[in-house]
Amino acid sequence: MTHTVREKHKLLARVRRIRGQVEAIERALEEESGCDKVMHLIAGARGAMAGLMAEVVEDHVRTHLVDATRHPGALDAEAAEQLLDVVRTYLR
Amino acid sequence: MTHTVREKHKLLARVRRIRGQVEAIERALEEESGCDKVMHLIAGARGAMAGLMAEVVEDHVRTHLVDATRHPGALDAEAAEQLLDVVRTYLR
Amino acid sequence: MTHTVREKHKLLARVRRIRGQVEAIERALEEESGCDKVMHLIAGARGAMAGLMAEVVEDHVRTHLVDATRHPGALDAEAAEQLLDVVRTYLR
Amino acid sequence: MTHTVREKHKLLARVRRIRGQVEAIERALEEESGCDKVMHLIAGARGAMAGLMAEVVEDHVRTHLVDATRHPGALDAEAAEQLLDVVRTYLR
Repeated sequence: MTHTVREKHKLLARVRRIRGQVEAIERALEEESGCDKVMHLIAGARGAMAGLMAEVVEDHVRTHLVDATRHPGALDAEAAEQLLDVVRTYLR
Repeated sequence: MTHTVREKHKLLARVRRIRGQVEAIERALEEESGCDKVMHLIAGARGAMAGLMAEVVEDHVRTHLVDATRHPGALDAEAAEQLLDVVRTYLR
Repeated sequence: MTHTVREKHKLLARVRRIRGQVEAIERALEEESGCDKVMHLIAGARGAMAGLMAEVVEDHVRTHLVDATRHPGALDAEAAEQLLDVVRTYLR
Repeated sequence: MTHTVREKHKLLARVRRIRGQVEAIERALEEESGCDKVMHLIAGARGAMAGLMAEVVEDHVRTHLVDATRHPGALDAEAAEQLLDVVRTYLR
C-alpha cells in the first residue's frame, strides 16, 4: 500500500477543494465577472495545487525513498527534513 | 465588456480542461494509483493552471491597462510585450 | 531616461546585496560547508532575485507601458495595481 | 565528506557563472541600460540559480538521505528519480 493510499482521505479532501475552486473560476468566467476576480481565483487555486503537491512529495519522501520494512532506520530524518524545507520554499 | 468576456470561450475551454485534470487526480487517488502517477497529474494540472493565468494576464494587459476608447494608441505595444515575456517566463 | 535609471540607486543596492549572497554561496562551497547551509543560501539569493525582478517589473509597468507625457492619465492605476498583485504572487 | 564537497568543482563553476550574471545586471544598471535588457539579465540569472539549486538538491537526495555505508542499497533509486523529476519541474 503506497503513501497516497494511506493519506488517501486527507489528499482527497484537498483535491475536492481544488475542484471547487476550479468550478468557481468556471462560474466567474460564465457570469462574465471582472478579470480581477478571475485572476484572484486562479491564484488561489494555484496555491492550493502547490499545497497538494507539497503534501504528496512529503509523503513520497517519508514513505517511498526507503523501504522501512527492509531497511529500518535507513532514511536520515534530518536530511529528509532539510530537503522538504527546500521543496516547500519552491512549492508556494 | 471586459476582456474576460471577449475571450470567454477560449478561457472556458481551458478551465474545463483543467477541471478534467483535477478530476483525474481525484480518480487516481480514489483508485489508489501510485504516487508517481499522482505527482505527474498534479504537475500537469499546475502547468495548465499557469497557462490559464498567463492568458488572463495577457488579456488584462492588452485590454485593461489603458482604456483604448478614451486613450487610443496610449499603450506602448513594445513595452507591453516585454512585460508579457517576463510574465510568461515566471508563469511556467 | 528610463525607469531603471530613475530607480537606479535603489536597484543597485539590491543587486549588490544579491552579489554578496552569491559570494556567500561561493565561500560556503569553497569551505566545504554542509549542503543544508548551501541550500539555505541559494534559497535566500533566489528570493532576493525574485524581489529585484518584482521591483523592476513594477517600475516598468508604472513608467513604460504608457508615455505619461504624451498620454497623461491614460494608464488605469487600478488595473495596473491588480496586475502587479498577480506578478508579486508569482515572483516569490 | 558531504556531497557538496565531492561535487565542489562543478558547483563552484556554476556559482561563479551566476556571479558573472549578477555583475552583468549591476553593470547594466550602472550604464543605464533599458529595462528590457535588465529584465532579461535577471531572468537569466534566476534560471541559472534554479539550475544550481536543482543540482544541489539532486546531490543531496542521492548522497544524504541514506548513509550508503551503513545502509547500502536502502535508497530506492526509482522513487528518488521520481522525486527529482518533480523537483526539476518546479525548479525552472
